[in-house]
Amino acid sequence: MFEKFFNPEAVAVVGASNNPVKIGYAIMRNLISSGYAGKIYPVNRNPGDILGIHSYQSLTDINRSVDLAVITVPAASVFDEVKECVSLKVPYVIIIPGGFSETGESGREVEKSIKNLIKGSHTRLIGPNTVGVYFPHTKLNTALTPPERVSFPVAGDIAFISQSGALGLLTMDSISEYGIGISAFVNIGNKIDVDENEFLEYFNQDARTKAIAIYLESMDNGRRFYELLRAINRVKPTVVLKSGRTEASAKAASLHTGALASNDRIVDGMLRQAGAARAYDEVELLDYSRVLAYSKPFAGERIAVVTTAGGVGVITSDYVSSRSHGIGLHMATLSEDTKAEIRKQIVSFGSAENPVDLTADGDIPSYEKVLGVLQKDRGVDAIIAYALPQTPKMNMEVVEVISRLSAADKPILVGVIGSKLGKELLVEFERARIPAFPSIERVVKSLKVLHERGIYLKSRGLL
Amino acid sequence: MFEKFFNPEAVAVVGASNNPVKIGYAIMRNLISSGYAGKIYPVNRNPGDILGIHSYQSLTDINRSVDLAVITVPAASVFDEVKECVSLKVPYVIIIPGGFSETGESGREVEKSIKNLIKGSHTRLIGPNTVGVYFPHTKLNTALTPPERVSFPVAGDIAFISQSGALGLLTMDSISEYGIGISAFVNIGNKIDVDENEFLEYFNQDARTKAIAIYLESMDNGRRFYELLRAINRVKPTVVLKSGRTEASAKAASLHTGALASNDRIVDGMLRQAGAARAYDEVELLDYSRVLAYSKPFAGERIAVVTTAGGVGVITSDYVSSRSHGIGLHMATLSEDTKAEIRKQIVSFGSAENPVDLTADGDIPSYEKVLGVLQKDRGVDAIIAYALPQTPKMNMEVVEVISRLSAADKPILVGVIGSKLGKELLVEFERARIPAFPSIERVVKSLKVLHERGIYLKSRGLL
Repeated sequence: MFEKFFNPEAVAVVGASNNPVKIGYAIMRNLISSGYAGKIYPVNRNPGDILGIHSYQSLTDINRSVDLAVITVPAASVFDEVKECVSLKVPYVIIIPGGFSETGESGREVEKSIKNLIKGSHTRLIGPNTVGVYFPHTKLNTALTPPERVSFPVAGDIAFISQSGALGLLTMDSISEYGIGISAFVNIGNKIDVDENEFLEYFNQDARTKAIAIYLESMDNGRRFYELLRAINRVKPTVVLKSGRTEASAKAASLHTGALASNDRIVDGMLRQAGAARAYDEVELLDYSRVLAYSKPFAGERIAVVTTAGGVGVITSDYVSSRSHGIGLHMATLSEDTKAEIRKQIVSFGSAENPVDLTADGDIPSYEKVLGVLQKDRGVDAIIAYALPQTPKMNMEVVEVISRLSAADKPILVGVIGSKLGKELLVEFERARIPAFPSIERVVKSLKVLHERGIYLKSRGLL
Repeated sequence: MFEKFFNPEAVAVVGASNNPVKIGYAIMRNLISSGYAGKIYPVNRNPGDILGIHSYQSLTDINRSVDLAVITVPAASVFDEVKECVSLKVPYVIIIPGGFSETGESGREVEKSIKNLIKGSHTRLIGPNTVGVYFPHTKLNTALTPPERVSFPVAGDIAFISQSGALGLLTMDSISEYGIGISAFVNIGNKIDVDENEFLEYFNQDARTKAIAIYLESMDNGRRFYELLRAINRVKPTVVLKSGRTEASAKAASLHTGALASNDRIVDGMLRQAGAARAYDEVELLDYSRVLAYSKPFAGERIAVVTTAGGVGVITSDYVSSRSHGIGLHMATLSEDTKAEIRKQIVSFGSAENPVDLTADGDIPSYEKVLGVLQKDRGVDAIIAYALPQTPKMNMEVVEVISRLSAADKPILVGVIGSKLGKELLVEFERARIPAFPSIERVVKSLKVLHERGIYLKSRGLL
């Protein structure tokens, strides 16, 4: 299922264009510039080449089977194009344009008629109102945005299912700066045929995918979604950003993707029951997906913090231990042996208490020894380690050190705050699949999600 | 007061060094590379040059008065150096090294003896346990970190008082990436003499400073701090990040800067009473300072949102209107006239309801007209506008458009989510003093702080 969708040998772009203001132009450019290795067939009523590739006047004219047709023509012409796809038995069709159920009754009618076209056929539809897909592994990219406007992430461990196209694109654009990778991106849009549930099943089986991130404005088959989430979360973590939480925003969602309102308390309880993490925005969605994809969940509540900047340690302790503005866990009480060992590694005005403060004198060997001691302390359940590039003796070796020590029992989450050197460190941590975050709050919130998964797995006898 | 501190004509660096591992080396490099235009006098017991500048064997040997002495020698030698400063009537002395009250009783005793030295003298002390200062306007930079490790912000509107040096440095490093400027940075450290209160008074008078950001682990004179904050906030907004909120973190703070614990509920009530905004981490501190420095506070509760990406509008509506995960304000109900005007500007599948969705077709002229209409709608109190670089027709002109429309009554806060083009937009917005933020949550949280200041000013009859 979906094999040819994720790995098509031939893709047709219906409405491909040489005109830079058309989406059929941007999509052609993305397909070409991403380095998609399969065959590309532009389709345009006018004969000629499109971006240097021979163009066909209709899908039928191509005279060979394509695995995927990307329809970029305006809404009014979509019906006819889908009809042709069905008669040619094109297995997968992405309908890019908006202008359907999200605009009202007449749009809903058109969607229905398109849906009727594929009944009993071999054709599956993705969309409409979608930017389509981006698959780093096969370099298939059908985004409707010019390539210079969006950076796309490298290949990674997170599958990203989004109901909204633009939200997907800007999230991918944001994370690529930090070298964060994804295994696939699919934008389900108005999902008149294939929906989040089918992709959930696919990514559950996909060996590349270690965690699944989902942005939804509506659940058309909430029962099925719940059952899938519940089954999948026993093995593979999922993070759900479900928007339209209030009356005001649910109305906005219905105008955006034709989503029907759902009671947010029910959604919340359902996600909790299913063991899914809940994100509230685009940043949390990928932060939580990363920590769950890369780290071992933990059920304990005792957190150790290592820093080379005292103030960062104090603020982190606040967030860890506070219930009002924080996650309500506990700062670990280190054993006397641990403290004695740490004291050997730090200057006199450092702190061997938790948060451990190596001060600006902290170098990589002492950092490594301190982390090693904390990994062994039975009073510690998880570790937050700051790699602060402003500290004179901090360097890229810290990535290898933390990577090595992350192999031990307790998860290590990393905070990196800074600009140029900070960005380089974050990219290196990401490459090593160490969850690293550019702010204190983000590292602590992600820690909480990893802890909640630990609690969930433990309650199911899975940890 | 402090005139020669912020604008010294001659600075001595006691313990200046050619040895790259010494902080007396890093500080000399920062002074030189920042472009400080006054005289620099390195002081080192050994004769010779330091970084190409003639060095003196003692402060006395310089044989002219200096306005500021930066003491970089180890803690044990600080007493003697301060004694010399006092006898030479050096008006300002920064004591860089740690190793005093934050390490325990003996350190506290040394601090006391140093404090006794300046009684009745003309000398004021900043520190110890400080990185000193950074003043963009006079390019005075005494940071102890090698210059290649920290980027320093440009000249701007925010004065930044920090008890912790490293937290100050890494925060400055982070914001410089976005072109965010400051009017001054002072690190008060263990504050045995000059404390946050005196700098608060100074920045209150400073015309360059439009908002004051303060990071504190302790308040030694809380009464005075409260009275100052209360007076200052009537005119100039302040944002306070007070850490050590819980028992666990207060202990960490005492090990870091020798801070005494304070009851956080009292701190909270005090800040509220004084009209200060409270930040909980390094990101909020500068976000809130910027929005308060650049924008007009508002007391109403009706928020309009403009986006070119529907999903971003829905998530923003969630955060605006939700109480559980959000700020509990209201999405404005737009008037029929407003909606009719907006409809003229957008494609059929866009939304003229709030959040207004111009979709990927939204261009700058329609963006400008929509913002103009919202500025006139009496049912709107404040506006969140997204400038999303993934949208094909979005470009740098949006900065000028929003800048022009921000001159009208209602504040406009901007969200920019993305990577390369996003960063460029953020820097341009910052240059225009438009508060812009790289995530949905950050723009909404900042909006709340601006609203709270509006409520505060209104309750005092000041709005």
